[in-house]
Amino acid sequence: MTSLPLINAAAARLKGHARRTPLLSSPFLDDIAGRRVLIKAECLQHTGSFKFRGAWSALTALDPAARQRGVLAYSSGNHAQGVALAARMLGVPAVVVMPADAPRLKIDNTRALGAEVVLYNRATEDRDAIGTTLADERGLTLVPPFDDPQVIAGQGTTGLEIAEQAAAEGVTAADVIVCCGGGGLAAGIALALERTELRVRPAEPAGFDDTARSLAAGRIERNATMSGSICDAIVTPQPGRLTFPVLQRLAGPGLVVTDDEALEAVALAFQRLKLVVEPGGAVALAAALFHRDLIEGPAVICTATGGNVDADVFSQAISRLR
Amino acid sequence: MTSLPLINAAAARLKGHARRTPLLSSPFLDDIAGRRVLIKAECLQHTGSFKFRGAWSALTALDPAARQRGVLAYSSGNHAQGVALAARMLGVPAVVVMPADAPRLKIDNTRALGAEVVLYNRATEDRDAIGTTLADERGLTLVPPFDDPQVIAGQGTTGLEIAEQAAAEGVTAADVIVCCGGGGLAAGIALALERTELRVRPAEPAGFDDTARSLAAGRIERNATMSGSICDAIVTPQPGRLTFPVLQRLAGPGLVVTDDEALEAVALAFQRLKLVVEPGGAVALAAALFHRDLIEGPAVICTATGGNVDADVFSQAISRLR
Repeated sequence: MTSLPLINAAAARLKGHARRTPLLSSPFLDDIAGRRVLIKAECLQHTGSFKFRGAWSALTALDPAARQRGVLAYSSGNHAQGVALAARMLGVPAVVVMPADAPRLKIDNTRALGAEVVLYNRATEDRDAIGTTLADERGLTLVPPFDDPQVIAGQGTTGLEIAEQAAAEGVTAADVIVCCGGGGLAAGIALALERTELRVRPAEPAGFDDTARSLAAGRIERNATMSGSICDAIVTPQPGRLTFPVLQRLAGPGLVVTDDEALEAVALAFQRLKLVVEPGGAVALAAALFHRDLIEGPAVICTATGGNVDADVFSQAISRLR
Repeated sequence: MTSLPLINAAAARLKGHARRTPLLSSPFLDDIAGRRVLIKAECLQHTGSFKFRGAWSALTALDPAARQRGVLAYSSGNHAQGVALAARMLGVPAVVVMPADAPRLKIDNTRALGAEVVLYNRATEDRDAIGTTLADERGLTLVPPFDDPQVIAGQGTTGLEIAEQAAAEGVTAADVIVCCGGGGLAAGIALALERTELRVRPAEPAGFDDTARSLAAGRIERNATMSGSICDAIVTPQPGRLTFPVLQRLAGPGLVVTDDEALEAVALAFQRLKLVVEPGGAVALAAALFHRDLIEGPAVICTATGGNVDADVFSQAISRLR
């Protein structure tokens, strides 16, 4: 399983390849939150999200023969782009299996980053069967989006940077609010921060708060549905088998924000931080700004995890500033 | 006058106070430009623009008595916010003189950053007379937006960072395209890079290319008008008395982009870099992307200087991505 030494090893492999993203702040956001707010701008990572870290970590942990055969990912979003770019930079063949009705731009972007995109019909074909056949035929290694020790270790490098950058700002004890889908980033950061006084709080959109409910119940609970949130990038059916025990041991309680709060956070990140953040990547900032009573201490840290947002959605979000 | 030692001294004063902004890139932008493009994301600086650097440099260069009396700036834009925040962080009183018809948000922001805002009627009152009277009465020191040795030194610290960050990416000889209004940033960076093989190229909007024309003519030329550009943040009547001789000696030739190219660069910075850049702050990126025949070498560096853009203008720019 992932542990601090595994994260440190991943950090050594990522050095000079992943970006050390900045920890930003704004006095205007501090005023809204009623405390200092430090934002880890992971939307500035390669391909626009932290997923590049996990992909690079997983690919560089493969043995040479497996690297040469290549990797496989299922994703129509940030994970696909992270795997595609990491694979291209490392000269590893990458196959990404995507639904044929995924947005054209996402398919084009993943192809442009050098991956072979295999499309399937969601109504008539079985994604896993297609992937398994491809993997068997070509000897590809599956790179899971979150439930994998090396992927979690890669995401955890974000936590090492947060600890260093927050200390440079004089913050050594605080809640660290992390946008949470499957929990790879939250679990990785929690492990990286285990021996500090920085405590991870997973943040999720209302109606898709499987992690918050699971932490409260003490066992894995599922979401009732997978669609209908503007924060679609971080909606998963349930916490991961590897990530949940980590979060149970080291993180919580979860924070839950409305779609409206997420969009307001997108608008404020635009206005005050000059960052493009997707709604799902803004739920941690939304929690920091609008749920101050559930947070302790004179400072809070949050992640801005992804910036891959449609122009229409973004324009809708910032229109509230007019 | 500003020189490398003055810039190094400013860098020492800025350390830990100004942000070391990241040098970003995207394979998609490399493809458009036909070469590697490295973007110095100065829109992530405090208050959203590089102006904070010059303000901090100027304020920390004051003697204690002058600091205690305070500073004065004329501006309705990025310079005002940079001076206001630097002054607040240093405990220096700041007065900003603004036209009464400036956008409400700009007035509110400058006030929220702790400055005393003095409004005047553009039709009936003389800005300089109001400022001079205030300065005389209270012993305030004027902080000019660009034509000042310590302001230029502060902006020049951007150049020191560019040289280090580009070297880390393996780029030691390239054009450095810099958004240019009065030329404080361009001159500062040019001085910082004087002993390197990185050469500054000022970038301006078409119709407001006073610096490009002045460099070509060998003497200062003025713009025909001051209004009508979407790149309003970098429109000035003419190159500065201090900045122009520096640019003449170390920089050029200038690059000129259309408003349409600037808006396209705003959209691409949104989509590929996850950055909010104002049109005037995107002219250097526009030149790098769309004027490739006027640039030499396998890599180019450009600045993204400011992110203080109206939501309507930004939505208009990114709507071309749909």
